Amino acid sequence: TEVVEAVGNEELVLASWQDGAKDKIINWVDATTTEGSPDFIPVADRIAVFDNDGTLWSEQPMYFQLAFAIDEVKRMAPEHPEWKNNASIAALLNGDMQGFLSGGEKALLQTVAITHTGMSTQEFDSHVKNWIKTATHPKTGKHYNEMIFQPMLELLDFLRANEFKTFIVSGGGIDFMRAWAEEAYGIPPYQVVGSMMGLTYVDSTASPELRKTPELFFNDDKAGKPVGIARAIGKRPVFAAGNSDGDYQMLQYTSTGDGARFGMYIHHTDSVREVAYDRESHIGQLNKGLDDAAKYNWMIVDMAKDWKVIYPYEMK
Amino acid sequence: TEVVEAVGNEELVLASWQDGAKDKIINWVDATTTEGSPDFIPVADRIAVFDNDGTLWSEQPMYFQLAFAIDEVKRMAPEHPEWKNNASIAALLNGDMQGFLSGGEKALLQTVAITHTGMSTQEFDSHVKNWIKTATHPKTGKHYNEMIFQPMLELLDFLRANEFKTFIVSGGGIDFMRAWAEEAYGIPPYQVVGSMMGLTYVDSTASPELRKTPELFFNDDKAGKPVGIARAIGKRPVFAAGNSDGDYQMLQYTSTGDGARFGMYIHHTDSVREVAYDRESHIGQLNKGLDDAAKYNWMIVDMAKDWKVIYPYEMK
Ligand SMILES: [Ca+2]
Ligand SMILES: [Ca+2]
Repeated sequence: TEVVEAVGNEELVLASWQDGAKDKIINWVDATTTEGSPDFIPVADRIAVFDNDGTLWSEQPMYFQLAFAIDEVKRMAPEHPEWKNNASIAALLNGDMQGFLSGGEKALLQTVAITHTGMSTQEFDSHVKNWIKTATHPKTGKHYNEMIFQPMLELLDFLRANEFKTFIVSGGGIDFMRAWAEEAYGIPPYQVVGSMMGLTYVDSTASPELRKTPELFFNDDKAGKPVGIARAIGKRPVFAAGNSDGDYQMLQYTSTGDGARFGMYIHHTDSVREVAYDRESHIGQLNKGLDDAAKYNWMIVDMAKDWKVIYPYEMK
Repeated sequence: TEVVEAVGNEELVLASWQDGAKDKIINWVDATTTEGSPDFIPVADRIAVFDNDGTLWSEQPMYFQLAFAIDEVKRMAPEHPEWKNNASIAALLNGDMQGFLSGGEKALLQTVAITHTGMSTQEFDSHVKNWIKTATHPKTGKHYNEMIFQPMLELLDFLRANEFKTFIVSGGGIDFMRAWAEEAYGIPPYQVVGSMMGLTYVDSTASPELRKTPELFFNDDKAGKPVGIARAIGKRPVFAAGNSDGDYQMLQYTSTGDGARFGMYIHHTDSVREVAYDRESHIGQLNKGLDDAAKYNWMIVDMAKDWKVIYPYEMK
């Protein structure tokens, strides 16, 4: 097809996707980018949005941003002897994850606050960059940014080669993702939409900076995703990919627009090469999305069956 | 120079700028885009931000967005007999601008609320598009989107030809600008940063939409501009242009970053071809910016002297 030719070598297009799923994607891109096609979408409207955790990279056994926060608590603890007086943080520092998690949402939010705020955006950015260079995943032993999904990288490339703009729209923290997303996915900071804490401009010194403050400014999840899209992108997407019920409204908003649309759910079905989970999972629960996939014509990607490889390092 | 050649015909580069000002811009772009130059800026960091009102288009005798709001009140009034009970709005409908303005900020905010919210983003977008097609400026008789600054269009083009990404960062309403900025300036919606009211995702019908609600979500002015930049762009700009003290922090944040930077103030000095105003003006006041221009090495563009033409229609 034309779109495949546009990318160059046909064998390289979506190379890690099995034929059935691959054909669906290629046919849709072909239909929407061929002039004169009834489904043609002008270049200016080719907006594609991607959830991040569980859609572009793994998210088990815990969101990688939470792993970062926990590692940061440990790294910063020597400068903060007062943290020993906080039961949840003290449990964390003693390696007692049960004790930490028993602190519930309050403990989690505290952990995020002390590791993500009270510093400049520039300092936070270098903390994340240092962590992603050094930390490794407990199961695979790989750096977290090596645990991105090879088939999704190919999908991002394929869409961009066909003049789609690719955006991340994630419940994760916007500054956390921006520190590594450009290198990992080729998605620049201004195409990353995410949850946001407070920010204050401080110009009391010769080098003004933005300080991160602990109040929640915007929660880019569930019904917040279409809101985040409207605020940051200002166009209704024509293509959306997610993996959980947190993406339901984003896919719904995308698929109910006029004209050709593509909604995709990544279904974590591969207990051998990754982790199998869906309706009952505490992380990345996918329940309502599975129920309503047919109604909205969403493609369910079966990771075990549709993906030849999961991670880029499997190809070496 | 290399950068001029990149654009093509040398005579077309910044053609409406007089030589002195033109040379300063070209020399800086040359220094920052020539590989091996000590001031070289990688493509990924070539972020340029522009205020809108008074920087990319005119803003007298009132912000054009306010003219839109007033026209909308008049257009919508027949459906809203209850507005007659509101003294400020009633004054406006009777053509009594003094009476309307005596209502102060409260009357202005009410006017914005009833014309900018209580509808979907899509409806609002078509209201703005209809207005910009039909309304004309009281002094020039031109459509408002014809009153954009020709030299600034050339500057946007020149920067983009040299692989800068151009963003609007304005105190104006984000949805108002997005309705026409892509056509007027070649700046797509996802490169427009502005002030924002509330937004709610409503999926109670088969075609979900985003409803605009009247609370202020973000004020993208003064110290809010660096905050808006950090949130929406996620990189510190290397080039910034503004025209008022509302842009002071944006220019300061830009100019105090590491490496080569360019800050520019458009100084409204042309009482014949446009309007002359600065330190004492109620609209677009430029006072502190003039005082500190030398300190930050900001270029002051003297519209009367540095611009051969103001508006594109003068060239026909
Ligand atoms: Ca997810
Ligand atoms: Ca202005």
